[in-house]
Amino acid sequence: MTDAMRALGAELRNWGRWGADDQRGTTNLITPEKVVAAAGAIRTGKVFDLGIPLDADGPQTGHFRSNPRRFMSRTGQERELPGGGRGADDWVVMPLQAGTQWDALSHMFYDDHLYNGYPAAAHVTALGATRNAIQHQAKGIAGRGVLLDIARLKGVDRLAAGTAITPADLDAACAEQGVTVGAGDVLLVRTGWWSVFAADGDRERFMDAEPGLSLECARWLHARDVAAVAADNWALEVLPAQQEGLTLPLHLVLLRDMGMTIGEMFDLDELAADCAADGTYEFFFTAPPLKFTGAVGSPLNPLAIK
Amino acid sequence: MTDAMRALGAELRNWGRWGADDQRGTTNLITPEKVVAAAGAIRTGKVFDLGIPLDADGPQTGHFRSNPRRFMSRTGQERELPGGGRGADDWVVMPLQAGTQWDALSHMFYDDHLYNGYPAAAHVTALGATRNAIQHQAKGIAGRGVLLDIARLKGVDRLAAGTAITPADLDAACAEQGVTVGAGDVLLVRTGWWSVFAADGDRERFMDAEPGLSLECARWLHARDVAAVAADNWALEVLPAQQEGLTLPLHLVLLRDMGMTIGEMFDLDELAADCAADGTYEFFFTAPPLKFTGAVGSPLNPLAIK
Amino acid sequence: MTDAMRALGAELRNWGRWGADDQRGTTNLITPEKVVAAAGAIRTGKVFDLGIPLDADGPQTGHFRSNPRRFMSRTGQERELPGGGRGADDWVVMPLQAGTQWDALSHMFYDDHLYNGYPAAAHVTALGATRNAIQHQAKGIAGRGVLLDIARLKGVDRLAAGTAITPADLDAACAEQGVTVGAGDVLLVRTGWWSVFAADGDRERFMDAEPGLSLECARWLHARDVAAVAADNWALEVLPAQQEGLTLPLHLVLLRDMGMTIGEMFDLDELAADCAADGTYEFFFTAPPLKFTGAVGSPLNPLAIK
Amino acid sequence: MTDAMRALGAELRNWGRWGADDQRGTTNLITPEKVVAAAGAIRTGKVFDLGIPLDADGPQTGHFRSNPRRFMSRTGQERELPGGGRGADDWVVMPLQAGTQWDALSHMFYDDHLYNGYPAAAHVTALGATRNAIQHQAKGIAGRGVLLDIARLKGVDRLAAGTAITPADLDAACAEQGVTVGAGDVLLVRTGWWSVFAADGDRERFMDAEPGLSLECARWLHARDVAAVAADNWALEVLPAQQEGLTLPLHLVLLRDMGMTIGEMFDLDELAADCAADGTYEFFFTAPPLKFTGAVGSPLNPLAIK
Repeated sequence: MTDAMRALGAELRNWGRWGADDQRGTTNLITPEKVVAAAGAIRTGKVFDLGIPLDADGPQTGHFRSNPRRFMSRTGQERELPGGGRGADDWVVMPLQAGTQWDALSHMFYDDHLYNGYPAAAHVTALGATRNAIQHQAKGIAGRGVLLDIARLKGVDRLAAGTAITPADLDAACAEQGVTVGAGDVLLVRTGWWSVFAADGDRERFMDAEPGLSLECARWLHARDVAAVAADNWALEVLPAQQEGLTLPLHLVLLRDMGMTIGEMFDLDELAADCAADGTYEFFFTAPPLKFTGAVGSPLNPLAIK
Repeated sequence: MTDAMRALGAELRNWGRWGADDQRGTTNLITPEKVVAAAGAIRTGKVFDLGIPLDADGPQTGHFRSNPRRFMSRTGQERELPGGGRGADDWVVMPLQAGTQWDALSHMFYDDHLYNGYPAAAHVTALGATRNAIQHQAKGIAGRGVLLDIARLKGVDRLAAGTAITPADLDAACAEQGVTVGAGDVLLVRTGWWSVFAADGDRERFMDAEPGLSLECARWLHARDVAAVAADNWALEVLPAQQEGLTLPLHLVLLRDMGMTIGEMFDLDELAADCAADGTYEFFFTAPPLKFTGAVGSPLNPLAIK
Repeated sequence: MTDAMRALGAELRNWGRWGADDQRGTTNLITPEKVVAAAGAIRTGKVFDLGIPLDADGPQTGHFRSNPRRFMSRTGQERELPGGGRGADDWVVMPLQAGTQWDALSHMFYDDHLYNGYPAAAHVTALGATRNAIQHQAKGIAGRGVLLDIARLKGVDRLAAGTAITPADLDAACAEQGVTVGAGDVLLVRTGWWSVFAADGDRERFMDAEPGLSLECARWLHARDVAAVAADNWALEVLPAQQEGLTLPLHLVLLRDMGMTIGEMFDLDELAADCAADGTYEFFFTAPPLKFTGAVGSPLNPLAIK
Repeated sequence: MTDAMRALGAELRNWGRWGADDQRGTTNLITPEKVVAAAGAIRTGKVFDLGIPLDADGPQTGHFRSNPRRFMSRTGQERELPGGGRGADDWVVMPLQAGTQWDALSHMFYDDHLYNGYPAAAHVTALGATRNAIQHQAKGIAGRGVLLDIARLKGVDRLAAGTAITPADLDAACAEQGVTVGAGDVLLVRTGWWSVFAADGDRERFMDAEPGLSLECARWLHARDVAAVAADNWALEVLPAQQEGLTLPLHLVLLRDMGMTIGEMFDLDELAADCAADGTYEFFFTAPPLKFTGAVGSPLNPLAIK
């Protein structure tokens, strides 16, 4: 850990801001008033589902995480129920972060502390996380969403791997799109990177380097009191990191210091096309995680409703 | 299968209503106009998450389905990443219908046909469902929700096992609560039965008999063009069935003939208390399933937003 | 940990006996000469398989461990392969100690040390065991087996729960059966307790208290240089422990101090009946664990060959 | 299915040979007398374990089957048990045919019939196999084993992919090695192909084409009344098949017509080196599958004892 990283973490740290017992972090910024105001963004009734398909043909390479495997425990062919009906059931085995997902605030940490000062070794064990687990976000992520389409801003289908999105890029996108990002908003950032897998089918390339937010964007998000942030790549931030020797530094500052939940592998293409067509980049956004007790992440199918 | 059941199925059958290729059924009734109108139900900004916790201590007894098992594939203690960060990850093994869930239209069937006339044996195999699988509902379930609190109507904490909720009960609840149920609405029915597990911790009793909708409610739902229906028990319908010798007849008519998606184990208690307090039983409702390709059901965490 | 326990552990400790790098413990006692000698016990060609069935109807209650769940990933009905053949495949999800199994020497420990002095926290993590894992026994467990049938010795179908088998009982069984237990032998102890599940179908009772070896038997096993020990109950040792406040003390001394692998849920009934019939309680015994890298236990199907 | 294939199946068919109810097939040929005679092959006490490691780094590519995933359900660090001990446990998720394994007689079939004439669609469903499942081999596979080292015969480290081993090759190996293969023997065939994964680490190549037994070897195995056959590749037989348009024809004839259990991915290298050194290619062989009820295959760790 570099001195600069530790200094940035200390500068942006939200520990104690929502109480010594808080386990939610910045999603606390989505107040009831914000939810009511966000409802005004529902104008056309169009619904966009941002989850990627969950199946054995997903983007995971198997080196780190695997794709979901689903099994039929019955198909209905093996027996007829009394009365003549038949039923089918299935099971799944999957990493909770294999697809479209939220990182819990317990997903990453450094110096043995989680968000809000909880000791990590004591609270993240083989049994799961007893602090900052994903179920604490179960009702907290519904409100105003804003899309910033950086690929479109740059005039490309997708940003190149290793491209760092800067605070200036975020400002430029706001200006170009005529939208503001404010307190309690959920920010969705489109890099176009999802197409490496979705269009090209190239898992290895998708999972290797990627374009994404630079570490300095943490200040931008903090200054605007953003509630949560997500992107269409697999790690939100630029890979490899610009800071030599660091691994996922933006994750560490957002999750551990700011208490900001991170969303990954959100499919933003259909939504972005619609936003470009009607010039409206805000929407009502609901993205509750599943309530896996003690989990450090959760798959979900987020909805943007315009 | 009785003649009466087959006659009821034929009477309420929606096959072809939304085209020969439709795989969504009654959620087609949630039109963009309905979504926009439903946004008006967001008045206070209160968010209610209706999903039950997903963990090894859930309501499943293991006889039929098991509770989710989650494993940490790493805790962060086993190694430090370059730069000093640490990360935790987890996996889950679970039946897709172990908790709060939607039944896909391929979940139950009879006479070898699924909703919209698809042959069942050909389309539901060990690989999954190639028609009417859950991913077809991925963007379809967001709109107006209405709660009918039958336990409160009857003045009890919970209805007794085996209690059949009738169309007259549904009408009485509408009148008592001052709410109407119309085209494109998602209906949530509260029986109080969830408390058998949640308060008493009695899995065996919760999963044995239960109060729920009678078979005749299918006509009531059909007449009003309800988009989807869910309850706080584990099978929506009364158990045992009133029709001797039949197994889950309401499932068969709703899923297979009407094409109506069924929700189970929705935790409605907190929402119901709020509705009783402010007298408002409608809300904005978002309940997208996860996009498990080919699945016959999906867990989710539905939100009611008032 | 009591002083008495620590003293017993120190007295029987085999650390360093087979080298500072050893990860096998007492199975080192099965030398090639012992294997050749054991072959002489094959006289009739009768083969006894001691593994219990592995399926969802097994003895696990789900509180601690669950029974195996097997899924068909294909049945052959979903498609014909080129040329007209069809194939079926299956997957399993299971705790490695759900059925007949060996405990690895990394399964239990105290004072942060494993057998042979390896630090436990450093070597048993969420990734598995990097010392004393089960694969180190992969070729080591084949040789002479001896059955001591304590239930038969006492003239009962099964010993009562809580019955402690003493060194004197083991000696009496040797005398009664006309058999000796010596260096490099694998000892199988029959309590009759398996019938609580196998005959009565009572999982809860089977998994609650049980008859089994007393802690003092550790000295008896050590004095004879037994190579491994197994029984037909689920924990080898008497439950509850005779030493107030201790949990599985015999496990701790055998696995951690002596380096003796423990076998559990061996179905000994058919073998015992045959031994009683012909008066021969020795046999050739092969019981290799599966080679799960880093695992703290393994299911297996042991064979006794007479 | 070609006429020639159907004719070969009819010629070698063993249906009814061991009774109309038999579910074991050719392992019936290992009589008690054969077991006793085989014990004579234990001369030096050397034990060779033929199972491959079971972990996430195994030979499966994930296209068809995946490698085993093991999870720690506890490491012992999360809590101290009463008395001061600590315990670790693990679970596994795996295809039953991911590593060293036996194919059950229900694994492959054609013309809707399994070995011994059982209808396939009725007996192999999403619940598993109700005829010819692997548990019927639980006690049947222990006796004389013979290794035929075809790679060594041909003077190569490994045969090339697509190389068909002929009956003449098998005869030549017997002559060269000074060994006979007779009734009730288990035949192990070494192609050297395992080194493509074990030495080169090339999963894709290992799982693509392979050297192996030609279809005509079925007659050779039948004529000698071999009890079971296994090899060090992943499918026993040569791939691609020599018969245009057929998929795994030797599997179909052995499993479905002859009732002969097939072993795959047996690691024969250490055993082969020893056999070459002492000129003795026979041994005592124990290879019981795990008793997975209804399974179409099972992992195992076979032992060859010389």
